[in-house]
Amino acid sequence: MSVLATPRRSSLVPRTGRDARLAARGGELNGQTAGVAPGYVQGNLAILPDRLAGDFLRFCQLNPKPCPLLAASAPGDHRLPTLAEDLDIRTDLPRYRVFRNGELIDEPTDIRAHWRDDLVAFVLGCSFSFEEALVEDGIELRHIALNLTVPMYRTSIATVPAGPFHGPMVVSMRPLKPADAIRAIQITTRFPAVHGAPVHIGKPELIGIADLMKPDYGDPLPLRPDEIPVFWACGVTPQSVVATAKPEFCITHYPGCMLVTDRRNTEFAIL
Amino acid sequence: MSVLATPRRSSLVPRTGRDARLAARGGELNGQTAGVAPGYVQGNLAILPDRLAGDFLRFCQLNPKPCPLLAASAPGDHRLPTLAEDLDIRTDLPRYRVFRNGELIDEPTDIRAHWRDDLVAFVLGCSFSFEEALVEDGIELRHIALNLTVPMYRTSIATVPAGPFHGPMVVSMRPLKPADAIRAIQITTRFPAVHGAPVHIGKPELIGIADLMKPDYGDPLPLRPDEIPVFWACGVTPQSVVATAKPEFCITHYPGCMLVTDRRNTEFAIL
Repeated sequence: MSVLATPRRSSLVPRTGRDARLAARGGELNGQTAGVAPGYVQGNLAILPDRLAGDFLRFCQLNPKPCPLLAASAPGDHRLPTLAEDLDIRTDLPRYRVFRNGELIDEPTDIRAHWRDDLVAFVLGCSFSFEEALVEDGIELRHIALNLTVPMYRTSIATVPAGPFHGPMVVSMRPLKPADAIRAIQITTRFPAVHGAPVHIGKPELIGIADLMKPDYGDPLPLRPDEIPVFWACGVTPQSVVATAKPEFCITHYPGCMLVTDRRNTEFAIL
Repeated sequence: MSVLATPRRSSLVPRTGRDARLAARGGELNGQTAGVAPGYVQGNLAILPDRLAGDFLRFCQLNPKPCPLLAASAPGDHRLPTLAEDLDIRTDLPRYRVFRNGELIDEPTDIRAHWRDDLVAFVLGCSFSFEEALVEDGIELRHIALNLTVPMYRTSIATVPAGPFHGPMVVSMRPLKPADAIRAIQITTRFPAVHGAPVHIGKPELIGIADLMKPDYGDPLPLRPDEIPVFWACGVTPQSVVATAKPEFCITHYPGCMLVTDRRNTEFAIL
């Protein structure tokens, strides 16, 4: 019996954005979305009350590298038609995190019970898109090869504040050979909607990173002697900033459990 | 009496490629062309006997980063109409170097006495063009600020050989802050006809440079603690390769005394 003929569809990795969302909606997909629906844009999620939405939108606009905004919903609207026709932001992610006054109160696989008429959903670009472009160009990404989470660091680079949202930029680090680092800068420059070019290379101490082996999030990743560290603005920045602002109410995706859209990564390349 | 009204035109810096060539042809310009005719493409010159021209052309084609070929003349033809309508390669550079069997035999300001019917002139892109683009973007280049010659190094990066032409790539080094280095990679990527993106960043020892303060050509340039070294393929590579091949006869420009063309640097940007 071939894999294609098996009726146990839930055990297969969804191949398209729509398949991924339907699997999440049906409860069949409740884990990580890394490797799911290759080629389709995945996004970070932040849901905030309308009262804070203007400030957050402005924060994204002022900080496009850590906060590349792909879409924002109308208040109370659970749809995001520019990302997918049928999308329901309340059910289509594998898992969520719900916060009240900055405190984690729930980690559900569906947020219909938490939904309110004043909520605005923000979807932000994520590094999965540019990592796919790098891997397709033949650049080895160590954290993927070792099945680890990319190391992330809070830096001394301040974001531009907007209303209650402020704090340091978080960056992710990938060790690369110098020629690959140059190529990676060229490739990611083509993807401004998903963090774009690196924000720093070479010297961690210049951006307030004392020890590369002690990331603030993710796994440590040793540098080989022929590699330099390359740092990209990271989608954890808005999460960290929202956590600092301690809004009365807030929902995000569960780490690694992203929204999978119908847009293709290649659509977001400017060249 | 204003500067504009003075009749001593020869004391003024030529403003266009044509002015620069006429000044060189008339003997009024016999020094460096740095700062001459801002905005106009300047080029490295190599003149070889027809017998070697095919191999050299192939060498350039195989090594486009150190040897970006802007134009090649027909054998015996002293014109290069794609670079300038009126150009005479025998008279339009401020100064030349003439070699016989690898030995320097003359440094004239005019090579009509040395001209032969079998000579082919090659003009190669030069870093002046991309440096102008960097400076216009607000990136400080230390060697320009200090009025020094950029430091250049023979590396362990081999060129792809063609006929008698082979040898290590020569690179130039500019110290840059990490964010400027990233921006410089983006800018020079747009100029493949004038060396293009850097070939290396960060770790000199990986390309066979033991001591940054001991360049093989040019002046040493100390790195500040907040800078990383950025290395571009250098137009000295073809000169070094030709010197190694010791052709029976060869003419080059005198260092710093480039051919100034009618083409504008901006014409060579791919974006």
